[in-house]
Amino acid sequence: MKTGEKLFFEDFEEGQVFRSGETEVSEEDIVAFARSFDPQSFHLDPEAAKDSFFGTHVASGWHTVAVAMRLMVEALPVSGGVIGGGAENVRWPRPVYPGDLLHVEIEVEGKRAMRSRKDIGLVNIKVTGIDQKGETVLVMQPRLIAPYRERA
Amino acid sequence: MKTGEKLFFEDFEEGQVFRSGETEVSEEDIVAFARSFDPQSFHLDPEAAKDSFFGTHVASGWHTVAVAMRLMVEALPVSGGVIGGGAENVRWPRPVYPGDLLHVEIEVEGKRAMRSRKDIGLVNIKVTGIDQKGETVLVMQPRLIAPYRERA
Repeated sequence: MKTGEKLFFEDFEEGQVFRSGETEVSEEDIVAFARSFDPQSFHLDPEAAKDSFFGTHVASGWHTVAVAMRLMVEALPVSGGVIGGGAENVRWPRPVYPGDLLHVEIEVEGKRAMRSRKDIGLVNIKVTGIDQKGETVLVMQPRLIAPYRERA
Repeated sequence: MKTGEKLFFEDFEEGQVFRSGETEVSEEDIVAFARSFDPQSFHLDPEAAKDSFFGTHVASGWHTVAVAMRLMVEALPVSGGVIGGGAENVRWPRPVYPGDLLHVEIEVEGKRAMRSRKDIGLVNIKVTGIDQKGETVLVMQPRLIAPYRERA
């Protein structure tokens, strides 16, 4: 893929892998997300988190998903944007801790035309979020909406 | 359920429904989430969004999920917190627009013990996000981790 080139439905093939850059999830990031969207002690407060299910301060699982989305937007230059048509199998095998460095690997698992639309198709991907130790912290299988180059 | 009472695994029954309060998703909220997690024109910029797939300014789907999570935390007083063990079937049937008022309805679909843990069980729920017109903007089926009252 050339730099700056956009991806259309025709460009996706089963087995393709895209790898994002790496981003840090700081303690401040974890607390800020928690305040807005998941105000629970184990996400809000490093001290109170010690007495929680997790035993330590961890990121909200939906924060991990949101960070993965940003990495996907950076790594996947889909024409028209990275637009999801749903997701299956969202899993958090391990928590994300303050200071973790995350990247995502995106594997194309398949694609299919839509009966109702001739201008866009669906691309099934598997997104794996990986920390600096190589541990998997997120798995999910979204469907992306991708426009056709030729039929658009 | 009495006010202030916490829910344990034993308290969940198939068919129970919990309804959250309502929250507004403002234009500023949509842009702020997009800047952090989904920096694409149709979420970042009301003007540029007119030329996008959506044709207008819409919230990131993961922003809708994050708002639903906050509403779940408020509506479901699970002992130990609202902790997800994964989610299936995440769908966004319609976009969320600036100024929309969202609430969630949470239906208990079932529950099961874990072979590996005697202190917690899993509760399957269906979360439906609904806007002020009664339209469904989000469906997802997470599993919650719930501690036992008696075996904890």
